[in-house]
Amino acid sequence: MNISIIGLGLIGGSLGLALRESSIDVVVTGWDRDPAAITAALERGAIDHPAFKLREAVRDADLVVVATPVMVVQAIFKQIAADLKPGAIVSDVSSTKAQIADWARESLPPHVSFIGGHPMAGSERHGVVNARVDLFNSAVYCLTPDDRTAPEALATLEALVAGIGARPLCLSASEHDAYVAAVSHLPFVLSAALAQITTQDPRWPEMSALAATGYRDLTRLASGDPVMHRDICLTNAAAIQPWLRDMAGLLNSLADRLDDAHELHALFDSAKQGRDAWLHERQRTTEQERKPDALRVPDPALSI
Amino acid sequence: MNISIIGLGLIGGSLGLALRESSIDVVVTGWDRDPAAITAALERGAIDHPAFKLREAVRDADLVVVATPVMVVQAIFKQIAADLKPGAIVSDVSSTKAQIADWARESLPPHVSFIGGHPMAGSERHGVVNARVDLFNSAVYCLTPDDRTAPEALATLEALVAGIGARPLCLSASEHDAYVAAVSHLPFVLSAALAQITTQDPRWPEMSALAATGYRDLTRLASGDPVMHRDICLTNAAAIQPWLRDMAGLLNSLADRLDDAHELHALFDSAKQGRDAWLHERQRTTEQERKPDALRVPDPALSI
Repeated sequence: MNISIIGLGLIGGSLGLALRESSIDVVVTGWDRDPAAITAALERGAIDHPAFKLREAVRDADLVVVATPVMVVQAIFKQIAADLKPGAIVSDVSSTKAQIADWARESLPPHVSFIGGHPMAGSERHGVVNARVDLFNSAVYCLTPDDRTAPEALATLEALVAGIGARPLCLSASEHDAYVAAVSHLPFVLSAALAQITTQDPRWPEMSALAATGYRDLTRLASGDPVMHRDICLTNAAAIQPWLRDMAGLLNSLADRLDDAHELHALFDSAKQGRDAWLHERQRTTEQERKPDALRVPDPALSI
Repeated sequence: MNISIIGLGLIGGSLGLALRESSIDVVVTGWDRDPAAITAALERGAIDHPAFKLREAVRDADLVVVATPVMVVQAIFKQIAADLKPGAIVSDVSSTKAQIADWARESLPPHVSFIGGHPMAGSERHGVVNARVDLFNSAVYCLTPDDRTAPEALATLEALVAGIGARPLCLSASEHDAYVAAVSHLPFVLSAALAQITTQDPRWPEMSALAATGYRDLTRLASGDPVMHRDICLTNAAAIQPWLRDMAGLLNSLADRLDDAHELHALFDSAKQGRDAWLHERQRTTEQERKPDALRVPDPALSI
């Protein structure tokens, strides 16, 4: 199976590493607008073949995965549309899905299948130099088919996702965007807002010495790529906005009631129970997924 | 030197382990209101001698460290006041310092020296069972002397703190409380608020599957002890309140401007720079502190 990865950053590079390491029979071609990233991907073993032109990269591909920054995806779709072979599958790895699906409908030819994708894995580090073969291990990998998606194309993509050790999860683009606004986008906005109001305070030089592991962990996501965070906000604003308002409302109401022992305890207790239950379930699922190679059996759907 | 630890939880237990492991010549006596915690502390090697009565625990002590939950500290001060020997030092490990200093002034006799203490280290886990000998390694350990503090008492405490591998930092109780409100209390309130609004949402059963490492890290502090978090809020409300209002204001203003690419980028970029600079400085300091045993040389001030 010929797979082309367009954009060789942390996610594209890790995907190449994981596909080539898997038991699936793949040949991975990689393109990036930066030739140095292509060379680095080759050196790291993330791709089999470099492609220095987009046309070369996609014309033999059974699957094209666009792993560029989200704001470039529309331009890439337009540039590759004429060179995609009939029956090819096109996917992406962007953090928002409704906007991407609109662009795919507008730009891609009817003889290819587009299925949005979003691996729930990442790092505040970026670039192919930080790519990891195990980045997707046990991670949920969202796929957002719609009512026009060909079942065989979806089955192929699901098998590939399982083949790299991730857990495919199908849902609609709008469900996806609402959910990630809460569990992914709200956290990084909070993390950045916390880093901002503390480090910009005139007392920061003194108070920074007191910041410890709690502060470090809560601000970790603030060290992520500002351009990626900006673009996620721009493309998922409608879903993120109500979460920011809810959060601001809760913080203001807490500020009013910092003398109310009962209210405070009820909040901290409920938050702890909710979080602990999620963590417990997550660990249980991850342990199940790690059982020997159950997910790594090659799937007939892969024999395109 | 006879040291008594009153309250054998995560901090008290870790302090006992670290003191006994250090090169300082100490005998550690431990008391807890729960006899099972005393037995567990003995078994873990966190104390040399158990004390099943408070009077026994403190009467021979050169230093008494009160490591109970903050709301119990006032009652402990009252109960031990009559049994403290002249010249003894009393300290604590609570997360807020002005309230504790008031209680010390009200309840402790004039022939002892009270110096507030706060190690900037912890865990969302609690109890002596989770105590760690290295919990304070390279951690900042705040001490809050005031203008009545005897210099010898402060020197003794600073040397002990350095002896367990931590970094003593002297500042006033009110400075301490303002700073920790920003770098410690605001983070755990945010963490709990995030866990609360997500896990209480009716869509949580579906969206929880998409929560990944970012969500896990941002909500880590929400798994901490609800009683401890409540009591910190109650005893440091005045310092926490303005930070909650600022944070709510920033989130509301962001919600208004999620279509403003320039504003978003400026925020994420500034937050990243501030956080990265802090992390860099922190790593540099920690590496310096780890140089061979510079801090573990016994100090003459310890020969009480």
